[in-house]
Amino acid sequence: MIFIPERMTPLKARRLGLDTQQELTIYLRADSAVCKSEGFSALSRVLVRTEHSHVIATLNIITGELLHGGEIGLSESAWKKLELEEGDSIWASHPPPIGSISHIRAKVYGHTLKQEQYREIIDDIVSGRYADIHLAAFITACGNDNMNNREITDLTEAMVNSGSTISWGLPIVLDKHCVGGLPGNRTTPIVVSILAASGLTVPKTSSRAITSPAGTADTMETLTNVSLSLDEMKQVVCENGGCLAWGGSVRLSPADDLLIKVERVLDIDSEGQLIASVLSKKIAAGATHVLIDMPVGPTAKVRSQKSADKLADSFRKVANALGLTIDIMFSDGRQPVGVGIGPALEARDILAVLQNTADAPSDLKARAIELAGAMLEMATDMPKGEGRKRSRELIETGKAWNKFKKICEAQGGLREPPIAPYRFELIAHQQGWVQSVDNRRLSQVAKLAGAPADLAAGVEIHVKLGDQVRPNQPLLTIHAESVGELNYAVEYLEAHEETVQVSTDKEACDAATAL
Amino acid sequence: MIFIPERMTPLKARRLGLDTQQELTIYLRADSAVCKSEGFSALSRVLVRTEHSHVIATLNIITGELLHGGEIGLSESAWKKLELEEGDSIWASHPPPIGSISHIRAKVYGHTLKQEQYREIIDDIVSGRYADIHLAAFITACGNDNMNNREITDLTEAMVNSGSTISWGLPIVLDKHCVGGLPGNRTTPIVVSILAASGLTVPKTSSRAITSPAGTADTMETLTNVSLSLDEMKQVVCENGGCLAWGGSVRLSPADDLLIKVERVLDIDSEGQLIASVLSKKIAAGATHVLIDMPVGPTAKVRSQKSADKLADSFRKVANALGLTIDIMFSDGRQPVGVGIGPALEARDILAVLQNTADAPSDLKARAIELAGAMLEMATDMPKGEGRKRSRELIETGKAWNKFKKICEAQGGLREPPIAPYRFELIAHQQGWVQSVDNRRLSQVAKLAGAPADLAAGVEIHVKLGDQVRPNQPLLTIHAESVGELNYAVEYLEAHEETVQVSTDKEACDAATAL
Repeated sequence: MIFIPERMTPLKARRLGLDTQQELTIYLRADSAVCKSEGFSALSRVLVRTEHSHVIATLNIITGELLHGGEIGLSESAWKKLELEEGDSIWASHPPPIGSISHIRAKVYGHTLKQEQYREIIDDIVSGRYADIHLAAFITACGNDNMNNREITDLTEAMVNSGSTISWGLPIVLDKHCVGGLPGNRTTPIVVSILAASGLTVPKTSSRAITSPAGTADTMETLTNVSLSLDEMKQVVCENGGCLAWGGSVRLSPADDLLIKVERVLDIDSEGQLIASVLSKKIAAGATHVLIDMPVGPTAKVRSQKSADKLADSFRKVANALGLTIDIMFSDGRQPVGVGIGPALEARDILAVLQNTADAPSDLKARAIELAGAMLEMATDMPKGEGRKRSRELIETGKAWNKFKKICEAQGGLREPPIAPYRFELIAHQQGWVQSVDNRRLSQVAKLAGAPADLAAGVEIHVKLGDQVRPNQPLLTIHAESVGELNYAVEYLEAHEETVQVSTDKEACDAATAL
Repeated sequence: MIFIPERMTPLKARRLGLDTQQELTIYLRADSAVCKSEGFSALSRVLVRTEHSHVIATLNIITGELLHGGEIGLSESAWKKLELEEGDSIWASHPPPIGSISHIRAKVYGHTLKQEQYREIIDDIVSGRYADIHLAAFITACGNDNMNNREITDLTEAMVNSGSTISWGLPIVLDKHCVGGLPGNRTTPIVVSILAASGLTVPKTSSRAITSPAGTADTMETLTNVSLSLDEMKQVVCENGGCLAWGGSVRLSPADDLLIKVERVLDIDSEGQLIASVLSKKIAAGATHVLIDMPVGPTAKVRSQKSADKLADSFRKVANALGLTIDIMFSDGRQPVGVGIGPALEARDILAVLQNTADAPSDLKARAIELAGAMLEMATDMPKGEGRKRSRELIETGKAWNKFKKICEAQGGLREPPIAPYRFELIAHQQGWVQSVDNRRLSQVAKLAGAPADLAAGVEIHVKLGDQVRPNQPLLTIHAESVGELNYAVEYLEAHEETVQVSTDKEACDAATAL
């Protein structure tokens, strides 16, 4: 006595021009036959089929006149994913239950998940079966450190297998990553240039910012094209030994890109998701040797040496389980690196170091040399200390800068970073010494100013811990692309005096800033 | 050197007729001045102001021709919240950061939150400052049992204070709640009728289903109006001693209603959120004495006596901290209660018990008597056992039925529950004994059939554990309002034979069904 539905009458696809970002969304009239016959209501998840393809989308109900009877509206994301043309036939029905949601529920209830369960979650995410609220629940459930190393390994493998992978056919392929939280610490483009200039292979792919005002991909985007196809990326690396591409466009670990978009709005990171995010990108990009730069400081992402040791231990265990050679370098995370915070402002610091100009930020240069040196020593039989020396030479002889230019040319041409039209300067009101700098507050100011979406927006910091300042000396400059954003950043800065603290007591300052 | 923005040109409000449920959503053209000047992009959170009111909404970007220049589209929820008329002036700008998101982050990182932090979270939720993904993160972060009793108490108080509260000026005001998971266990309307008939005060407000196929409000909606204003509700209670209203419409603990909508899609419950949800409704409704019905069984929400004891302990401690008298009654949660599962089908069982018909489900009647009896004894000086006796009399003399009719009349009139047009019967293929019934699978079948949104949809179960069945005897009937939904329910049932298991071995069955 089972009722077989007659072949349903198809709906006509209508492009509504609504950009809902990654969430696939469809629109149906409240009085449509399909809503009545299928029992759909607002926020229902719906299986949407064309003759060639299908997706699961979230339903928004239209109560007005936007759609005619028999039409189905689609968001830009759904339209593109289904490769539709205006008027194409579409069938809407109930989706099968998303099996992997029960794994998230199990994780919330404190259970350890198995390899197969992570695989199912990641498959469902990459297939677009998760609504944004499911992604939010997955991220939150894996928050803190409630995944063990075995689970992180399984999640990493699932993420690697969810997209393309590259095999270089070489015994040594290098990569690096900085565990963020330290504004302006944009060493990657410099390190890649040094290593490629010394003949090694560094196919660098980077993410955009998660919760910070800039990621390496955001910064590089102000200097050249970073959206390379897999073939383009291979070509650049074969010719130049390195590249500086955005990971998202080459579909390496695509699950990571979907998760990051929700993480950014939520502003919640998780240790397990962090390791899986980093290592899945490296493995998918074909890396064999990876250096992790881990800044430690009270307002950095990793706040104490104890947390750093724990995170490093997980990184090592997961990397080893996945056959990756890894080295972790702890660094001083008490204050920003370089001058600029924000995509274009950081790009200017990079150019200054590579061009070996007199005003190049010495801390950024020193860090890049440190990291490139360690990677040279990890990848070759160079004796300890020799890597650092060689790295300095490659910068100071201009060889790294030449290599950087060649990489940018190969990616589509080197360009000038944009300049923001609106600025605000914070000045010192008295003479004294810089006692503390709050990385988190500074990042917040840069984000309120519009970074990373506005490439020219951000903050320049003109002082370092312990510096002596005179009255009226500029401490910070905020850059913004709009007046509204500049005002928000200024208001926030004025409400948070602790962002940069100047003390009149030199001894107290020395005590506070001692390493 | 702060730039003060000129008074921004207002946008013209345009009602797009898009129903995004509770999430407040606005729509702007990608090329609009406001998007450029404020740096907005898809999913940005935007402060939307009229001359009288303001909300924070999620931005969707329009790339097509849906809006003209200078227009702002609004979802139905945003339109109603701002009480707009077509063409009204609107200003869009950056919202201040949502301060309480950092508390959710702290919760994810395992910290204990303070009273003030829960208050801020709930205030932000009720003010509409959270996007759905923030609600999902809060629910997930509080999942499992990672809130202590002090935190649950604080959350409960914050939820009570987020909406209206009722004071009855009486020493004893009764309420009850069943910790769900047991399909068909719809005792509330019967218990309220008994207690009100015996002269006590029971201002009952109920939620709609969270993850189950029906809540008491869904069931009562098939019999009468449940959307009462606070004044209407007070009137009904003053005249009749009791009411059976939907809590959402009287704005008692409105945060709860917002959380429940996301919980339903996520399908994740949390012990702390459960207790806060239940007790906040009771306290806001002015209850002084509360009975919690807690069914325990392997496929009920509470699966073991150990979990039940733990949950009961938290319930008692939180209730005591809030000055509430509480009693917890554990009950057999191994199989559904009554015949029907789903709003209208459960309503039919209730009518049969109240009308004292010969075919009334005896288990539902016995449970209602048990619960009402315990509440009579808790509220008066009636000796133990006397409450149960008195409750049975009130049913069997028709006094409870008369009271129920009066309450329904006062709420807007008693009506006949709807009947579903599509059905499917599952029959026994062999002779045997009913060895197990899976509450979760049955609920899933009822939900796939369309419950609770389709009021007439659901499942009737015709057998109880240990019953002897003959070949071709009906075990279940699925009811649906659409063919598509009926098919989904049938497919699911056929894929899950364990939903109702019939054994040919009587001894094995007896062993499996022994209490």
